[in-house]
Amino acid sequence: MSTTKKSSRVKTEMATLDVDSITVRGHNLVDELIGKIDIADLFFLEVSGKLPRPAESRLINAMVVAIAEHGMMPSVIAARLTFLGAPESLQGAVASGLLGAGDTFVGPSSNVAKMLQIEAAAFDGSMAEKAKSIVELYTSTKRRIPGLGQPHHPVDPRTQKLFDMQRELGVPTLNTELMLEIHRFAVQKLQRPLTLNAVAAIGAISSDIGLDWRAVRGIGLIARTVGLIGHVLEEIRMPQANAIWDLVQQATDYSDPHP
Amino acid sequence: MSTTKKSSRVKTEMATLDVDSITVRGHNLVDELIGKIDIADLFFLEVSGKLPRPAESRLINAMVVAIAEHGMMPSVIAARLTFLGAPESLQGAVASGLLGAGDTFVGPSSNVAKMLQIEAAAFDGSMAEKAKSIVELYTSTKRRIPGLGQPHHPVDPRTQKLFDMQRELGVPTLNTELMLEIHRFAVQKLQRPLTLNAVAAIGAISSDIGLDWRAVRGIGLIARTVGLIGHVLEEIRMPQANAIWDLVQQATDYSDPHP
Amino acid sequence: MSTTKKSSRVKTEMATLDVDSITVRGHNLVDELIGKIDIADLFFLEVSGKLPRPAESRLINAMVVAIAEHGMMPSVIAARLTFLGAPESLQGAVASGLLGAGDTFVGPSSNVAKMLQIEAAAFDGSMAEKAKSIVELYTSTKRRIPGLGQPHHPVDPRTQKLFDMQRELGVPTLNTELMLEIHRFAVQKLQRPLTLNAVAAIGAISSDIGLDWRAVRGIGLIARTVGLIGHVLEEIRMPQANAIWDLVQQATDYSDPHP
Amino acid sequence: MSTTKKSSRVKTEMATLDVDSITVRGHNLVDELIGKIDIADLFFLEVSGKLPRPAESRLINAMVVAIAEHGMMPSVIAARLTFLGAPESLQGAVASGLLGAGDTFVGPSSNVAKMLQIEAAAFDGSMAEKAKSIVELYTSTKRRIPGLGQPHHPVDPRTQKLFDMQRELGVPTLNTELMLEIHRFAVQKLQRPLTLNAVAAIGAISSDIGLDWRAVRGIGLIARTVGLIGHVLEEIRMPQANAIWDLVQQATDYSDPHP
Repeated sequence: MSTTKKSSRVKTEMATLDVDSITVRGHNLVDELIGKIDIADLFFLEVSGKLPRPAESRLINAMVVAIAEHGMMPSVIAARLTFLGAPESLQGAVASGLLGAGDTFVGPSSNVAKMLQIEAAAFDGSMAEKAKSIVELYTSTKRRIPGLGQPHHPVDPRTQKLFDMQRELGVPTLNTELMLEIHRFAVQKLQRPLTLNAVAAIGAISSDIGLDWRAVRGIGLIARTVGLIGHVLEEIRMPQANAIWDLVQQATDYSDPHP
Repeated sequence: MSTTKKSSRVKTEMATLDVDSITVRGHNLVDELIGKIDIADLFFLEVSGKLPRPAESRLINAMVVAIAEHGMMPSVIAARLTFLGAPESLQGAVASGLLGAGDTFVGPSSNVAKMLQIEAAAFDGSMAEKAKSIVELYTSTKRRIPGLGQPHHPVDPRTQKLFDMQRELGVPTLNTELMLEIHRFAVQKLQRPLTLNAVAAIGAISSDIGLDWRAVRGIGLIARTVGLIGHVLEEIRMPQANAIWDLVQQATDYSDPHP
Repeated sequence: MSTTKKSSRVKTEMATLDVDSITVRGHNLVDELIGKIDIADLFFLEVSGKLPRPAESRLINAMVVAIAEHGMMPSVIAARLTFLGAPESLQGAVASGLLGAGDTFVGPSSNVAKMLQIEAAAFDGSMAEKAKSIVELYTSTKRRIPGLGQPHHPVDPRTQKLFDMQRELGVPTLNTELMLEIHRFAVQKLQRPLTLNAVAAIGAISSDIGLDWRAVRGIGLIARTVGLIGHVLEEIRMPQANAIWDLVQQATDYSDPHP
Repeated sequence: MSTTKKSSRVKTEMATLDVDSITVRGHNLVDELIGKIDIADLFFLEVSGKLPRPAESRLINAMVVAIAEHGMMPSVIAARLTFLGAPESLQGAVASGLLGAGDTFVGPSSNVAKMLQIEAAAFDGSMAEKAKSIVELYTSTKRRIPGLGQPHHPVDPRTQKLFDMQRELGVPTLNTELMLEIHRFAVQKLQRPLTLNAVAAIGAISSDIGLDWRAVRGIGLIARTVGLIGHVLEEIRMPQANAIWDLVQQATDYSDPHP
């Protein structure tokens, strides 16, 4: 390869080390961060470059706690089965489960935030008019509005809890109000009840505390990581993967392909 | 497959759902956890089945913050290069980086905890005698003692900070004292300075707050996840992966294999 | 959870086992497949349910060989850095590199196949008219036409080689001809030379041998897996990850964030 | 970071590119490899630096075919559940399944090769004496001898098939004979029948064709990749992940933890 070309440089605003100190996003790690901030603060600092206010930090903690643990979810089953095959690698089992944190389950919170931060902002008018335009846009293009509908809960008990916290903590509620308006118009337009789910709350509250819509998936990824660690540790203490495998084997019907 | 065999059951103590409530490790999620616990508490609950005391929670937060962000580390470079190839999948880039959280960088904190919780406990005698036995065991079998040595920092500034917090918070310090004794004997035995690194502090403090040694890797995995999310978000705003690739290409010398 | 609900069944046409035989897609594994088919045949059988003809098999082998190994590519660097952190897990390093086989590098061959199989088929007219419609569609919506352009090679030497093989083997060439027409119109429309790259050949030939467009990514995934295994084995014999890390560290400039 | 330090170089014997040619392990890719070698040859070239003889190539193909597809195995279930959560990423689903190719299912073939290539070679004496020493070593340290035992098949029909091929193809059989001796002594020592499984055949034959024991896992990884691609494609055509999830949910019993 050519060596005459001027050498590339790599830029970052994340962190730097020297012999006796570590700087994380402009802060001395030991003097200013360790012992002074929690994991939620760290996440906010990582993705936005600044520390959150206490109310914002509490909301991030609440959102992660709300979605971290639901029992035998698909990503948990995947992680447990991966651990059965590769017990030498805790990180492999966790990564295997994390790979399912995509468009179906974790993406929608980010899509809610994008809808509120980007798509609604492109429409003129009052909040009600923006909400109406969003519902028209989605229904006319047959796209599902993210944040609406939930298989297990006709009313998602986490949604109200998170919105209550937001109000009590005195954080701005502009995006939450817009989400509620969208819900209202969608129910009216589609003529059927639609659960306003936890994903809607997370997308709206994240937007109200200033998180970029692309960072919102981070909340789901942290929640999944914590939950997956818990399940893999339970798998070590009380292995279930063989029982799961056996269940699937017994329920499987094979037939020849008809190409 | 046979269907006469009695159907397997799957057991868990993690969580369960019904139509209007979610139970996480014996607690009603909405009433008892959301808004009341933080991410560190959730991690402790996930892996141990009980909530930590406030001092324990603060130490978990401090340990995660201490190791989450160090700039352009190998796992970060891997995640950024993965994102270059697969920008459709934030979780894929994070998982790619997380897969490097293995025996070299994250495993040692777990190995410290195992050394303190299991290996030292197998020796008789006073704390000093146990420490001496551990050093003899490792040096006689030419194994490296985990928690000692650090490439960047002759003194690791995070170690003292974490031990100071532990003492100020009034948490038991038995495992930390044992680790300090091991450090003392190792320096004496090997006749050279050895950095007591952050990994030693994390293994010891985790043991003192009652975490199973296998759960200690979880602290590293959460820290990595948060840090990797931060770097992938920076990669979206300010792409560096092509510059990294270019650097490596320009510095690479190929020669034919001599099989 | 409810147990009154009728138990789910799982259907598959892939394989089944009993005490003394294994059936893979309708074939007895030991009697009909082992020793009689190669890896390329197996791939074709897996994704289409039938065995390829010899010419089709040779083309699959050729396509995988064409894209498997290019030296220090981003996915290879990621895999080597992951192995540095987690040397206990060969599969983790390979998986880490595989995660970069997404929309940027591997997806385009699948997009070529989709363009030829689905998008072009939706237009009426002669092959030339379909090709012209495709170029209009992509340029009017400012989408990049997949298969055109290549950073390293003004002429991609693999493309002609693969098309020559296809013709010599007497396989149908309808999709390849359509791809050539699209190339011709694109050059004419954009008024600049455009490399017809290996991705175009793979998308077109795969379509001509009857692979579903979604299966075409499989060719890239197999190629990557083989190449990544080779690089991780070289990393074991001759470690380079620390040198790569060092290069990046030395070339990195940190600045504080301006949130 | 310091810039005075002499810049690192990265060495490789895998591949290099220039404007009009690609060199893979000493061979011109277009002129010498595409159309002339198959995927098995490519794997051998990648890991050993030389091309295999035709008989060696046929054995690699046979070994991959023998273990690629067994229906609803744990890694397949993991990949399908991952795809349910992240349908945007075929590579993520495949990687998720690949992460289970660890010590339990894929590692043993590599362990067989290590036992034959390294451990047995350390003993003096005739082949029978080496085999006896190996059995003594494993049984006295209560380690399971890799390659012996199989849950589904009292006789593994793949083993004999692969050994027959090896003999018919006139490849050296020294490692296979050693494995058969080990099997004989193990049955005699443990006084019970032990299936000589496909893993034993793969470890022995790989050793007889000159593959380094660490490269043997590569055969399992390629086999898994091909099989996982097949299953994810079936999942696209005929989704089963929700049925699997439902099965597990219905069979799960939750109880509160007793910390």
